[in-house]
Amino acid sequence: MRKPTKEDKFSFGLWTVGWTGTDPFGGDSRPALDPWVYTEKLAELGAWGITFHDNDVFAFDASDAERAERVGKVKEAADANGLTIEMVTTNTFSHPIFKDGGFTNNDRSIRRFGLQKILRNVDLAAEVGATTFVMWGGREGTEYDSSKDLNAAFERYKEGLDTVAGYIKEKGYDLKIGLEPKPNEPRGDIFLPTIGHALGIIAELDNGDIVGLNPETGHEQMAGLNYTHGLAQALNAGKLFHIDLNGQAGPRYDQDKCFGHGDLASAFFTVDLLVNGFSNGGPRYEGPIHFDYKPSRTEGLEGVWESAAANMEMYLMLAEKAKAFRADPRTQEIMEAASVPELAEPTVAEGESLDDVRAEKFDVAALAAREYHYVELYQQAMRHLIG
Amino acid sequence: MRKPTKEDKFSFGLWTVGWTGTDPFGGDSRPALDPWVYTEKLAELGAWGITFHDNDVFAFDASDAERAERVGKVKEAADANGLTIEMVTTNTFSHPIFKDGGFTNNDRSIRRFGLQKILRNVDLAAEVGATTFVMWGGREGTEYDSSKDLNAAFERYKEGLDTVAGYIKEKGYDLKIGLEPKPNEPRGDIFLPTIGHALGIIAELDNGDIVGLNPETGHEQMAGLNYTHGLAQALNAGKLFHIDLNGQAGPRYDQDKCFGHGDLASAFFTVDLLVNGFSNGGPRYEGPIHFDYKPSRTEGLEGVWESAAANMEMYLMLAEKAKAFRADPRTQEIMEAASVPELAEPTVAEGESLDDVRAEKFDVAALAAREYHYVELYQQAMRHLIG
Amino acid sequence: MRKPTKEDKFSFGLWTVGWTGTDPFGGDSRPALDPWVYTEKLAELGAWGITFHDNDVFAFDASDAERAERVGKVKEAADANGLTIEMVTTNTFSHPIFKDGGFTNNDRSIRRFGLQKILRNVDLAAEVGATTFVMWGGREGTEYDSSKDLNAAFERYKEGLDTVAGYIKEKGYDLKIGLEPKPNEPRGDIFLPTIGHALGIIAELDNGDIVGLNPETGHEQMAGLNYTHGLAQALNAGKLFHIDLNGQAGPRYDQDKCFGHGDLASAFFTVDLLVNGFSNGGPRYEGPIHFDYKPSRTEGLEGVWESAAANMEMYLMLAEKAKAFRADPRTQEIMEAASVPELAEPTVAEGESLDDVRAEKFDVAALAAREYHYVELYQQAMRHLIG
Amino acid sequence: MRKPTKEDKFSFGLWTVGWTGTDPFGGDSRPALDPWVYTEKLAELGAWGITFHDNDVFAFDASDAERAERVGKVKEAADANGLTIEMVTTNTFSHPIFKDGGFTNNDRSIRRFGLQKILRNVDLAAEVGATTFVMWGGREGTEYDSSKDLNAAFERYKEGLDTVAGYIKEKGYDLKIGLEPKPNEPRGDIFLPTIGHALGIIAELDNGDIVGLNPETGHEQMAGLNYTHGLAQALNAGKLFHIDLNGQAGPRYDQDKCFGHGDLASAFFTVDLLVNGFSNGGPRYEGPIHFDYKPSRTEGLEGVWESAAANMEMYLMLAEKAKAFRADPRTQEIMEAASVPELAEPTVAEGESLDDVRAEKFDVAALAAREYHYVELYQQAMRHLIG
Repeated sequence: MRKPTKEDKFSFGLWTVGWTGTDPFGGDSRPALDPWVYTEKLAELGAWGITFHDNDVFAFDASDAERAERVGKVKEAADANGLTIEMVTTNTFSHPIFKDGGFTNNDRSIRRFGLQKILRNVDLAAEVGATTFVMWGGREGTEYDSSKDLNAAFERYKEGLDTVAGYIKEKGYDLKIGLEPKPNEPRGDIFLPTIGHALGIIAELDNGDIVGLNPETGHEQMAGLNYTHGLAQALNAGKLFHIDLNGQAGPRYDQDKCFGHGDLASAFFTVDLLVNGFSNGGPRYEGPIHFDYKPSRTEGLEGVWESAAANMEMYLMLAEKAKAFRADPRTQEIMEAASVPELAEPTVAEGESLDDVRAEKFDVAALAAREYHYVELYQQAMRHLIG
Repeated sequence: MRKPTKEDKFSFGLWTVGWTGTDPFGGDSRPALDPWVYTEKLAELGAWGITFHDNDVFAFDASDAERAERVGKVKEAADANGLTIEMVTTNTFSHPIFKDGGFTNNDRSIRRFGLQKILRNVDLAAEVGATTFVMWGGREGTEYDSSKDLNAAFERYKEGLDTVAGYIKEKGYDLKIGLEPKPNEPRGDIFLPTIGHALGIIAELDNGDIVGLNPETGHEQMAGLNYTHGLAQALNAGKLFHIDLNGQAGPRYDQDKCFGHGDLASAFFTVDLLVNGFSNGGPRYEGPIHFDYKPSRTEGLEGVWESAAANMEMYLMLAEKAKAFRADPRTQEIMEAASVPELAEPTVAEGESLDDVRAEKFDVAALAAREYHYVELYQQAMRHLIG
Repeated sequence: MRKPTKEDKFSFGLWTVGWTGTDPFGGDSRPALDPWVYTEKLAELGAWGITFHDNDVFAFDASDAERAERVGKVKEAADANGLTIEMVTTNTFSHPIFKDGGFTNNDRSIRRFGLQKILRNVDLAAEVGATTFVMWGGREGTEYDSSKDLNAAFERYKEGLDTVAGYIKEKGYDLKIGLEPKPNEPRGDIFLPTIGHALGIIAELDNGDIVGLNPETGHEQMAGLNYTHGLAQALNAGKLFHIDLNGQAGPRYDQDKCFGHGDLASAFFTVDLLVNGFSNGGPRYEGPIHFDYKPSRTEGLEGVWESAAANMEMYLMLAEKAKAFRADPRTQEIMEAASVPELAEPTVAEGESLDDVRAEKFDVAALAAREYHYVELYQQAMRHLIG
Repeated sequence: MRKPTKEDKFSFGLWTVGWTGTDPFGGDSRPALDPWVYTEKLAELGAWGITFHDNDVFAFDASDAERAERVGKVKEAADANGLTIEMVTTNTFSHPIFKDGGFTNNDRSIRRFGLQKILRNVDLAAEVGATTFVMWGGREGTEYDSSKDLNAAFERYKEGLDTVAGYIKEKGYDLKIGLEPKPNEPRGDIFLPTIGHALGIIAELDNGDIVGLNPETGHEQMAGLNYTHGLAQALNAGKLFHIDLNGQAGPRYDQDKCFGHGDLASAFFTVDLLVNGFSNGGPRYEGPIHFDYKPSRTEGLEGVWESAAANMEMYLMLAEKAKAFRADPRTQEIMEAASVPELAEPTVAEGESLDDVRAEKFDVAALAAREYHYVELYQQAMRHLIG
């Protein structure tokens, strides 16, 4: 497989390779390196971009000077290695002050503190040239029904998002917000648990035009949902602003495995959508191919880099297979037999009266008996993927 | 427990008590009765309303005369028993013609056939005085990635919904559409798998003002989601038009047990929301308490009626407990300690400048250390529920 | 990909290709053919064997003559086409008499009726030369805690299994029993929900020596379990008597997709175990490669045969990749680096005293820091699978 | 609700109230107290016993003196407060040396180190008078198929268990081993994922007579399984040695909520089994009522104690309801109607010939049509639980 290049637009969170292995049942299994060291190394492996939370680079209680110095070093390392800092985000989940969330914390002072921290990072994001500002509200939620006035929670969530989006507009920053849904963990039930719920709330915002989605593969799969379907609905709504690719084995704790190391066939169809688009055209995702994974806790530093490389290699292998699948004339034939192109035709023709539809006669038996050949079409995909 | 009365607004689908027990591994375990027989019997048990799919009352291929006759008998039985036909819906899932869906079938003729069937039932719904028209797109989806152009599928889904909603408006019917999300079964991945996804697509419609939600308890729980959270988001968006209460034991096949016979504590908090509203006020659900359940296949006709009664008894028992829980001064005290009322306060005061928030000093250690008493508040609920 | 041959030992249930598409929300979408027609056609596609439930071949209430005639025709078709009838099983789940199970029905008369039906099919199995008698207790279970004395249920389950196994021994039949676990559907909670639970009960039987497992891919995955791990535990216990391969997308209704059309990577490692065995040797599965799938309801008869062929093609493609993966010297190198062979060494050497272990000094820091390269090893598998 | 007393035999792990709130996305939210402080406080709340892992009391690298001193202080506090140290266990999961497990680590030296650590704690358990030695193999497993020779893994697991059990016997300790199954987290797929798998492996041991189960509510529910069914199978096999009660909301990360704060109705039927036994008699669980929960991360120290008390209060409330449910003559009537007692009768009478069963005539239609009244029986339970 060819090496990744900048054209592939592969991007990594510093917190991914930087994860030291602490989990609910055990402590660090690897040392933490300085963030600029990861930056350099990612460039070597072929990445195009990096992303980070504020506290991936400097401590929660860093002084202004420390903050500036450490961000400066990461920026320098990025520049020196030709890397784009494409996304910045705020950590409103690790410090115990956020144990009940930021935007939807029952405690108003904490909501204000959270907002302050986020606004400061909006400035930082703009300053380092990021174009996406992800917001993962991982602590916005509950374990216990009764612990929140849910209507108030949604009101506060909308207020928070509108405030940040309004601030971005006011400042004239070239930044869009990407909401990252997740059904649970670390909270029992997180608000905005899926792509759909995020689309729903965005539609209620005053400044929703610059708010879209940053869906993560594993997060949707934790709810048993089809990630590619979710991407498609977000694209259809003009809201797929960023993506987080990784691997997950269905409903269980958040695994953050390498992309393609979870549901492999689903990963293939995700890449198929990303590289080939919808089969009858339509909106495309043109943003970074961002990996949000964790090198498994069994891995040392060698394993960290092997796993970082694995994400990109998986994507490139899948992309090659997906292109061949779609280019194969036999695929086109089966798609025709399955009437895939026909779905692009409006059900009611332009200008047609509903009376025509209402009066139409149908050969119900024939329509009921028709073949779709969906299994054969899928098998054709499998022939390309593993044949 | 007191008997249900019309004031309780309990309503049942004819297909619920009418289910004869066929499942993927076995045939009927009970006889089918005539739909008007169920109608009468539901009234006796204390129901206020009934609902039905077209083909709960007449066969898929019924003649116009048969159709009119059988609908007439149900209407008569309803009238004679003081029952409201509050909702009507269309079966676009049982007949093999719909094996790949209606609105999103790859086959345009079938989409048109489905639209025709739906429009005819919109007229029927209006004719019998229903105020809600539920649309459950249970066959809209896929088992196989590749089998559909997903963008086209969403375009067709929106076209279908807008066409039906437009028709309702054109006719001046007093009808609202309630979308019923479901993650899977009978399709591998159903479009609009959750409340969120339905809210997302409604926001994209031209006629979305009369399109809202009919969320079903078990359907959300099949995706591991919190039903009460979903209701709250729908209410917050002004879109909770109807509800389907039942019981489910988490991610598995659709069980349709009696309401409260699945996740009992969750049912309690759902009823708490329905009868008490949000703790700081806000939008309320005022519609029917509609049960969409199946008498388990082990039950005979006696069990059918025992189970129908159980739904209402569960609701009434939970309602009584929920009222006592909320009225208890000790509950209010713990809610205060948990800052529940504080969430209703805007994070940024009206007219306040963001500069104030940005300049504010916080006692981070104190805020991080604060107690919420969420477990005690939940335990207080349990004391009322089972104590 | 080469065509399947008899040496591949591919086998199909007549109920698989014979499924007519009825599901909880819709009726037949395909016609039923005579069982001997499926037999012939499976031979054409390259199958080696067939299997059936009694009522796949003759009706529940068939007369002795009908029964004999129809079984005779299937046997003839099998013989004429060189097919082995390798397994026979009893349907104790479709008829409403079994709505509360057979062996564990609360009604003793039904338990006796079920036993009678099963014993009769043991004779049939022996008569047609089958060597495995599968028992799927799909209706043995509950929806409602309280509905059964669970201790009595396990006593009756053991009594039933011991009675049937004892009968087989008494008759001197060359038959082994394969239990098929499933967590739920059609019952809310099925007894013996996983491979483990079946292993547990077998250990309690008097005639457990001829009772083992027939694990189904999708059934374990419905509980979120790793199918290959389950096969390995059954093999390690000497109890893997038969297998049911198919495809499933995690916890949800039983999908019975083609093998490999569910979790593809897991299917790869299942085939790896079946064709290559454990990496350090040990027990092997030598039985039929049996597919227990359903052609999706969207498919017509063409799709039925396309999907039957897809199972075998998937297996053959995966087998080829698995062999190449294991034969690659680079794979061996990474396995060494991961200490895979070292796991075969006893922890305490033969004859070694525990005092030695207790006195040993360890370099804890070095052991804690060691690399395992599990991600790289997995990625090496992916290179073979999709590279 | 009455206060708990020693007769209730409530017992708590020191790691439960001692959990400081670190999770995968955040650090400590509460201070750690000395273990003897928790001991004292638990006694005050009404506990009868305590349990601990070695490293709940002393550090992984504690000197012999530190170890002795700290264990001594806990023992003293227990004695002073009349608490029984009923169970001791070993932490073979937190330190990075165990990142690939103990008994099944690919690295033989680490397996030996793990065995050493465990044996040392067997001595400790005996020394402090514990009667159960729990073994939770939380790191025994894989994230990646291919990373282990699974047959070797089961061989090593059995070797490890047999070695420890053999050592206990050799020393003559009054100790039984309780295996604690879990499906996943912190590993992708843990070996012995359910009660069933543990029963299966125990049957393969040489020293299996002193090895049984310590099943945890939430662990079984993470696989979507019915905890009460699992307890029943373990009891039926004579293997229910200890229990871990807590609360979980189905398949997702391990929540460790208070007992009864997860699936409430299931908790009711668990308590029903524990306090009332099987309805027709049979084996009973007589051991401690042990809680293995975590005070939610939102809670401070006040919340820690509120939540500890909540576990006991939930148990007592449920026990009272369960007793009343079973004592109610109406319950007995419905149980009779449901043929619950009939399941205790052997299907084949003692001494009866199978020929009798084979020759019996049945009224199939009548048996198929019989009522079971399972919904009404469950509703009767609900009337007691929440009525």
